[in-house]
Amino acid sequence: MHTPGSSVSGYVLLLVVQLVFIIVYGFFTEYSERILPKNETGPAGDGTMEEKILPKYPHFQDIHVMIFIGFAFLMTFLKRYGFSASGLNLLVGALVIQWAIIMRGCYEMEDGKIPLSLDNMIGADIAAAAVLISMGALLGRTTPMQLVIMAIIEIAVFAANEFLQLELMKITDVGGSITVHAFGAYFGLAVSFIMRPKKADAKAGPMECSSYSSDITAMIGTIFLWIFWPSFNSALVDGAEQERAIINTYLSLAACTVTAYVISALVSHETKFDMVHVQNSTLAGGVAVGSICNLMIHPFGALLIGVIAGVISVLGYRFVTPAMFSNLRIADTCGVNNLHGMPALLSAVFSAIYASLATSETYGSSLTSIFPAMEAVHPVMNSTIGDESAKEIHEYIIGGFGRTASKQGAYQLLGILLTVLIAMVGGLFTGFVMRHHFFGGVMPPKQLFLDDIWWIVDALETPPMLHSSSMSNSQVPFDILIADIFKRAKKRFRGSNM
Amino acid sequence: MHTPGSSVSGYVLLLVVQLVFIIVYGFFTEYSERILPKNETGPAGDGTMEEKILPKYPHFQDIHVMIFIGFAFLMTFLKRYGFSASGLNLLVGALVIQWAIIMRGCYEMEDGKIPLSLDNMIGADIAAAAVLISMGALLGRTTPMQLVIMAIIEIAVFAANEFLQLELMKITDVGGSITVHAFGAYFGLAVSFIMRPKKADAKAGPMECSSYSSDITAMIGTIFLWIFWPSFNSALVDGAEQERAIINTYLSLAACTVTAYVISALVSHETKFDMVHVQNSTLAGGVAVGSICNLMIHPFGALLIGVIAGVISVLGYRFVTPAMFSNLRIADTCGVNNLHGMPALLSAVFSAIYASLATSETYGSSLTSIFPAMEAVHPVMNSTIGDESAKEIHEYIIGGFGRTASKQGAYQLLGILLTVLIAMVGGLFTGFVMRHHFFGGVMPPKQLFLDDIWWIVDALETPPMLHSSSMSNSQVPFDILIADIFKRAKKRFRGSNM
Amino acid sequence: MHTPGSSVSGYVLLLVVQLVFIIVYGFFTEYSERILPKNETGPAGDGTMEEKILPKYPHFQDIHVMIFIGFAFLMTFLKRYGFSASGLNLLVGALVIQWAIIMRGCYEMEDGKIPLSLDNMIGADIAAAAVLISMGALLGRTTPMQLVIMAIIEIAVFAANEFLQLELMKITDVGGSITVHAFGAYFGLAVSFIMRPKKADAKAGPMECSSYSSDITAMIGTIFLWIFWPSFNSALVDGAEQERAIINTYLSLAACTVTAYVISALVSHETKFDMVHVQNSTLAGGVAVGSICNLMIHPFGALLIGVIAGVISVLGYRFVTPAMFSNLRIADTCGVNNLHGMPALLSAVFSAIYASLATSETYGSSLTSIFPAMEAVHPVMNSTIGDESAKEIHEYIIGGFGRTASKQGAYQLLGILLTVLIAMVGGLFTGFVMRHHFFGGVMPPKQLFLDDIWWIVDALETPPMLHSSSMSNSQVPFDILIADIFKRAKKRFRGSNM
Repeated sequence: MHTPGSSVSGYVLLLVVQLVFIIVYGFFTEYSERILPKNETGPAGDGTMEEKILPKYPHFQDIHVMIFIGFAFLMTFLKRYGFSASGLNLLVGALVIQWAIIMRGCYEMEDGKIPLSLDNMIGADIAAAAVLISMGALLGRTTPMQLVIMAIIEIAVFAANEFLQLELMKITDVGGSITVHAFGAYFGLAVSFIMRPKKADAKAGPMECSSYSSDITAMIGTIFLWIFWPSFNSALVDGAEQERAIINTYLSLAACTVTAYVISALVSHETKFDMVHVQNSTLAGGVAVGSICNLMIHPFGALLIGVIAGVISVLGYRFVTPAMFSNLRIADTCGVNNLHGMPALLSAVFSAIYASLATSETYGSSLTSIFPAMEAVHPVMNSTIGDESAKEIHEYIIGGFGRTASKQGAYQLLGILLTVLIAMVGGLFTGFVMRHHFFGGVMPPKQLFLDDIWWIVDALETPPMLHSSSMSNSQVPFDILIADIFKRAKKRFRGSNM
Repeated sequence: MHTPGSSVSGYVLLLVVQLVFIIVYGFFTEYSERILPKNETGPAGDGTMEEKILPKYPHFQDIHVMIFIGFAFLMTFLKRYGFSASGLNLLVGALVIQWAIIMRGCYEMEDGKIPLSLDNMIGADIAAAAVLISMGALLGRTTPMQLVIMAIIEIAVFAANEFLQLELMKITDVGGSITVHAFGAYFGLAVSFIMRPKKADAKAGPMECSSYSSDITAMIGTIFLWIFWPSFNSALVDGAEQERAIINTYLSLAACTVTAYVISALVSHETKFDMVHVQNSTLAGGVAVGSICNLMIHPFGALLIGVIAGVISVLGYRFVTPAMFSNLRIADTCGVNNLHGMPALLSAVFSAIYASLATSETYGSSLTSIFPAMEAVHPVMNSTIGDESAKEIHEYIIGGFGRTASKQGAYQLLGILLTVLIAMVGGLFTGFVMRHHFFGGVMPPKQLFLDDIWWIVDALETPPMLHSSSMSNSQVPFDILIADIFKRAKKRFRGSNM
Repeated sequence: MHTPGSSVSGYVLLLVVQLVFIIVYGFFTEYSERILPKNETGPAGDGTMEEKILPKYPHFQDIHVMIFIGFAFLMTFLKRYGFSASGLNLLVGALVIQWAIIMRGCYEMEDGKIPLSLDNMIGADIAAAAVLISMGALLGRTTPMQLVIMAIIEIAVFAANEFLQLELMKITDVGGSITVHAFGAYFGLAVSFIMRPKKADAKAGPMECSSYSSDITAMIGTIFLWIFWPSFNSALVDGAEQERAIINTYLSLAACTVTAYVISALVSHETKFDMVHVQNSTLAGGVAVGSICNLMIHPFGALLIGVIAGVISVLGYRFVTPAMFSNLRIADTCGVNNLHGMPALLSAVFSAIYASLATSETYGSSLTSIFPAMEAVHPVMNSTIGDESAKEIHEYIIGGFGRTASKQGAYQLLGILLTVLIAMVGGLFTGFVMRHHFFGGVMPPKQLFLDDIWWIVDALETPPMLHSSSMSNSQVPFDILIADIFKRAKKRFRGSNM
């Protein structure tokens, strides 16, 4: 059985993984051509703006904030799991970005080396989002090592599915709703299904709730995600497409937010706002518009999809999550099905609709850059297309070139179906690995949602209920409660150190 | 009379507003020409840097952080109003940016459509600042629906006044001190005057104070506002003007901060720093330099105005706000008169002085781009000026072209006078609408500054004093206090859920 | 002897300093040529992208967030020093950036004026980092005025040393590990040595610890520093060098983070993570890669140095800091020796190694821009180099031009040695000034780590132990504790105001 003190081997294993990464990077990566030193003899080229600035760097930093501040603080809503939420988010994120650069790089090697540039960092951060979404489903129910195992397997599956969808099937998914949000959510829920508690334990524990201050720190995460979501959705496109992606995401989020507040008040007890909805459902508009934000959905289309996402997401928190837990014992601590899963399905459906309506009248010459498989014939190395785009055009496209609009729409639906399927199968497999007793198995109820198992926490601040034997469903006598507080306070006053 | 449960109709109304927005956007907005797909046949134009990057996007995101993190967390200083501060800031902001795009767009329609681009988003975020400043004056004293009503009316007045000042009167106000800060502050104070409490209730309630932790979360807001203020003041100009705006705002804020600390210690009890001053007055330098930050005020001018703003703002918190409340019963929860109102008046006066001294020796060819009405004759569509600038040149300017420097200075003073007048009249009208019993009227003292009225909050954490009948001015017996704590703790242990 | 009420003279002095700054700026600064208004007659030049955008502005804002949010919130980890951590960070930062512009500007005056542009702001923010690192060593043990005195002296020494290292000795230090991190850490530790407590007082006080919520607000600081560190390290270079600096810093931080978690668990009691390590040691990778991040260290080199830094930093917290305190009574509240000092030494050693291996085969034409003293002869005003670079090339280089690679390596070692020496001598001198009784001397143990001495704090929230006479090493009887809570609660209920 797992005890907190038995995890030395797990941490040593993690260190070995980190050391292996160094070796793998030594053999298989190199700076990309663009950022190697040059040997110029003529007048310096370093004067041109083109070479001096990194146009994507501000976008990258916005996404970086979303991954490491946004996800981290959104998950601090639990009253006694804030160290883990912010801390394990950082650990898992730091591990994943190294691993994702390798796994994603497998599909773009040149001469046996992965060429590194800012683009790989953007891709790695986006991949990290998928893992952190899965982590949201499991929050408070796993050991740190189980998260590490999950991250390593999930990134391998993620990278393969991303390559399948974007390069082989050529679906459009600029904001990653299909490849990131749907994938991450259903991967995590499949793991959660395998890691489900025994029937007797399937109820919310005493620590699975927020406190007044933890709800406010969670808002830090929510709002930073909300603010930078337009950067997430627009990071991989340029020019007019990028500006449309920004505007549509901005509008969708705004409409979703207003709607989420209204629906939250209407479905909640006493017509009050519910912090769970405010922290999460306000973001559903960013997911729902993800796959279509660069398309010609027009401003009203962006608002409309935001409103729909807001309604779906709040109703999901109110009705779907409790039902999944009571019927299937699938826990979803952060409600990722409502914030990422269902809005991503919505986005995929809309992407199929808009794709099936796409014409060259509407999209002009950008039609075939948005939907590359709709090009009439295979583009022989086209001189009008820049280096980066060229790199991404592959010889082989499933189904071949020359798709009609409705065929592209069908492929969009196939894309989301395959993604959900792959995520679920991958998640089920990963769950079985995680449930192995070496990684700690399914945690007992009284260790759930509790930093104190994994972190050094001052004893005086430990919630008194943790010391009583049957804490979850009996009433602690108050003399015991008071005695406990005094006992620990005494210990503190007698001698404390930092 | 208003009861928390009776607001269903208000929320339904808000949903209707959101749905109407969709329709309005459908009929009256379109992506601007620049971001529509093009139909190019020649060699691709997407290779040029000009088309690939959005130079204003980092500026926009900085402002976005100010509006949704800065204002939100600055307002969390109240010990029991943090959900509302961060949450209603998000709700009102999300509503306002949609509405401001329409209202501001009325003055720049092309063929019956508002052309949308990143510029509209920047403008909408800046407009949101005005509403959130007004909200600061009223914080904790309104229902959410009253804020919504205020936001809708205020934005309509704001957009009209902005058009009047910048397009018809051609005053210079690059950082929005006149059109945003003064407008928002005096609009809010006028509302606060109409919503003033009865004489018997005109005293600070038990919840109108901060806690140790709420003062620290408020610093998140303060510091992000402080950091990104140079972006706010420089977002609407380019090149040398932009860089001057950045440097002057940076220097003014730094000098204001040092001064605010000193004055805070000197006027406070026991020569200690006061968190109220640190959270607010340190920002006054950004407001005070707003209207002049792109002018040739020189570095020492920026420092000087920062010092003056710091002194005025701290003295305002120490003496003016309490006097306004005790004499006129005008409550100003966040002290917006001291952070936005008076520093903005200062900025306007300085803008008149600098304008009256402006010569073409000092400003070169930028004189007429900074002060367009000083151009000798009406500029017939000038080929050297880009599209954007051209769009903003209107046929009609009040008083005509060919202003002298001193005449421009007089117009700057007229600008601030008209702005304050329009804001006050608008605020008084809005206050009467908000005081209507349909929106909840003036709230009773014991509901002020309290999240629990509007949000689902765990009962155990509710401050015990709320349960006693006469909480505000009597002494709660300690046996009742203790009994109350135990009663609620019992309820918690017996059965809790998320 | 110092009493809290006697510091009026100190604050008045600070105000005088601020007013003197205005005068100094009036005489000795001007906007740089680039941002003065121009007098153009031909077709407007404001259309070119070059003049319209500020390529470094997003980098600057990232650094600005690090200085004012990152350092500020990282230091809020103390349970009762959060006002000072976030507030004094802002005060000292605001003072330092004004002063650093002048001190650093002394070495780049043109015609008796310091030309101001965005570059000066970036430089000033980086200089502020050095002072805030020193402040970290002393956190909680000084009066605000002592910090001000330290800041003023430290910046003067910092600017001289920076000029010596970068301009006269031409060492490479793009991320400032030598000139900023090593300098700031050893300056602060030297001050701490002079300000060391009496033997009888040399133990951790009751307030020198974190609380559950203060550890979470500290994570805000940690994570923002972690996110934007690539911007800090890459702000002063362009093009390929900048992108390499970004990638190497990103990788080093990721590897350092994973390693720090593992080592933290392995060296801690019960194999648990320690928040002190997570908040600090995860950042050591950014320092350790600082001086070499633009060199050809390859991705695996970046990971390797990150792993080494993580190990050193955690072991430093676990063993070195306690040993320094118990043996030498050198207090290091934030452990800056482990986060900044030792990793910076590591970075310097690696910079010597990489410099001694540098060849023109590896670096091409960028060899002499990275290591200017390796140029064969003095570059007579080279037309291929832009204005900015030209400004930084000085006639005189210590040791002359034409260095070999190994000689450059030796200079790198000389650079770190001189920096540490200058920092220590400067710190010892500064410590003697600070210990003068006019500035408050060495603070008595019961005033340490306590906001209540310097800030207005609500009495009810004051930790009860502060009211007992001998709080630090005796056991407070519980009846007194309870009586005290009730007494203060009574005072609160009777009448409260904001």
